[in-house]
Amino acid sequence: MISRKMSYLAKNGSAIRAMFEEGKEMAAKFGKENVYDFSLGNPNTPAPEIIRETAIRLLNESDPVFLHGYMSNVGYENVRDSIAADLNRRFGTAYDRKHLIMTVGAAGAMNVALKTVLDAGDEVVIQAPYFGEYNNYISNFEGVPVVISPREEDFSLNLSEMEQKIGPKTKALILNSPNNPTGVIYPEKDIIALADLLRQKQNQYGHAIYLISDEPYREIVFGDYEVPHLPDYYENTFVGYSYSKSLSLPGERIGYLLISPKMEDLDETVGAAAVANRILGFVNAPSLFQQVVACCADQTSDMGVYIRNREILYRELTAYGYQIVEPKGAFYMFPKCPIPDDKAFCQAAKKYRILIVPGSTFMGPGYFRLAFCVSEKTVLDSLEGFRLLAHEYGMN
Amino acid sequence: MISRKMSYLAKNGSAIRAMFEEGKEMAAKFGKENVYDFSLGNPNTPAPEIIRETAIRLLNESDPVFLHGYMSNVGYENVRDSIAADLNRRFGTAYDRKHLIMTVGAAGAMNVALKTVLDAGDEVVIQAPYFGEYNNYISNFEGVPVVISPREEDFSLNLSEMEQKIGPKTKALILNSPNNPTGVIYPEKDIIALADLLRQKQNQYGHAIYLISDEPYREIVFGDYEVPHLPDYYENTFVGYSYSKSLSLPGERIGYLLISPKMEDLDETVGAAAVANRILGFVNAPSLFQQVVACCADQTSDMGVYIRNREILYRELTAYGYQIVEPKGAFYMFPKCPIPDDKAFCQAAKKYRILIVPGSTFMGPGYFRLAFCVSEKTVLDSLEGFRLLAHEYGMN
Repeated sequence: MISRKMSYLAKNGSAIRAMFEEGKEMAAKFGKENVYDFSLGNPNTPAPEIIRETAIRLLNESDPVFLHGYMSNVGYENVRDSIAADLNRRFGTAYDRKHLIMTVGAAGAMNVALKTVLDAGDEVVIQAPYFGEYNNYISNFEGVPVVISPREEDFSLNLSEMEQKIGPKTKALILNSPNNPTGVIYPEKDIIALADLLRQKQNQYGHAIYLISDEPYREIVFGDYEVPHLPDYYENTFVGYSYSKSLSLPGERIGYLLISPKMEDLDETVGAAAVANRILGFVNAPSLFQQVVACCADQTSDMGVYIRNREILYRELTAYGYQIVEPKGAFYMFPKCPIPDDKAFCQAAKKYRILIVPGSTFMGPGYFRLAFCVSEKTVLDSLEGFRLLAHEYGMN
Repeated sequence: MISRKMSYLAKNGSAIRAMFEEGKEMAAKFGKENVYDFSLGNPNTPAPEIIRETAIRLLNESDPVFLHGYMSNVGYENVRDSIAADLNRRFGTAYDRKHLIMTVGAAGAMNVALKTVLDAGDEVVIQAPYFGEYNNYISNFEGVPVVISPREEDFSLNLSEMEQKIGPKTKALILNSPNNPTGVIYPEKDIIALADLLRQKQNQYGHAIYLISDEPYREIVFGDYEVPHLPDYYENTFVGYSYSKSLSLPGERIGYLLISPKMEDLDETVGAAAVANRILGFVNAPSLFQQVVACCADQTSDMGVYIRNREILYRELTAYGYQIVEPKGAFYMFPKCPIPDDKAFCQAAKKYRILIVPGSTFMGPGYFRLAFCVSEKTVLDSLEGFRLLAHEYGMN
């Protein structure tokens, strides 16, 4: 007698989260060091020391009524000023506090953006493979996901299919780069083409089509790749950001929603997003960590472990016969399964105490996602299992 | 071209929040000490010292990957164990971690509970006057609020009207005691009668009717009044709790949803609520403050200031001619306006630099809400203004 929609979702819960729970059980059974859990994007590298120092300093020096109190729903002024200044320094932009709403992580930011723009029945276009949770976020506001098929050769944007599928009901397009689950970064030329396409469709249908960019992995880039700053390319852009990955603070739920200064009806949109942040029950982003990230906006955790893990896994798994599009950012790769049934393959991996997530969870069946935000030791110790698994399926 | 629903809400935003912003502007203009801002439930009494000590100890002693990391969406096991033990000690109950989901404050808990039970068109019964935000929370899930008229003599439960208005579409009833905005505590005899009524209606209509109790003010009780622990009286009960008021941590967004062990389809309901917490974008309650409140669950801020403020304001305002139902808990009172137009009266109060919120915001037109979670000095300094305001309207 609970909600029919929730009853369905509870019965068909998140495969990733189920695996997280299963990983905990396996760790209890076999010992944590003997389970190779690549299932969840939970950074293994610690928050930088400056996070601890800053939090303690704020706790010691600030008035607790200020530090733990309500502020405007959009966040503290000084925090938004600091983050705007950091963005302006990095991207040559001219943001101010007005363009920033502090949020309960990027998941909060995405929900606020979608609530702000969607009416029931509105369509949201997403390039597969993608983080399956977007379907739930869209469904929270009675929107309809429109899935764009993967281009399996390089997981780049399938612009020709977007051209066909963006229609009169399209209200938004979600982009996620560096991408979960593929690690792909969409290059500038594709962003320019996408922006042109969206502007043309806006003109054709006579209403705004919003680009909602989910950027928790912005700081995690391998080599010299550039992640284009989307508001530079397209006016009606929201950017959801999180410090979960860049500062290894996923449990603290701290991020922001950036609203382009060139957004149509800017003031109304900002006002509506502030209301959305309040009425969805977030009220405001956690106060202490707002102040902490404001002091540390230009810092990141040590990304060295992700660089090494990516190198080892890409090199070794390729050598074992796995087909992988080389990840350029984030801490995921998305290898092809040797059989069409990705669920069966991920099940088989458990024999080797390897936890990986079926690609169908990401609208990318036939693949698996490997989250390599784990220790280097876990990576090294897992290799024999990956080799045996490949052997079992005749890949080498 | 944003969402029509949000465009409407942004234009008709929260009167309380608008006043909070106006209060900041007035403070900048006249000096903070010359503005008597009774508009927002932002505790003025600081968090107890143990909060600072515990947070610093945890930051110094815990592995940051654990302290700031993801945990199960329902919260850390040790945190839920501590809170269950604290509840069991206080209420003689037998809760365990399974019955608790850590949430982003009580606002998060209410949204999780409503998402868990509501399908589009389901009705939610609420006793007026009430926190207007409930309307938005219900509307988030396409539910329909059904308002029960106030019993103005004492703001007690209007059980006879509930009897008439609870119908086949009723899926839930929201209760808030100690009450915002009246400070009323619903006594045990009324809770027993309400539970009997809900059980009878469940039988009549053949489906569960959920009691969703919003209890951020549970710890703020004046004199010897008892706040009945609702799961003791009614099976299908959710309790949303927040440490915002009891520990003066409103900005940190930390609370929990308690699900009665006697809930119909308990496992499915708990599972669905965990999914709701995740997909609404909360993901989990902020991690550091989960651990902080687990260590401080039996503590509260110094409530002395609320006791003194209530005494002074009730005594003096009554003497000036205001009609007030004496508050028994929370830090609000809900005096009657001398004119039917509560908005005009609250506007007039600004002349005396007094900020109060029109009762119509709480579905209680003709009254005003006074949040006395301010300093005693603010209360004392405001009195002359309240006296002059009463005089202006011929109340004395």
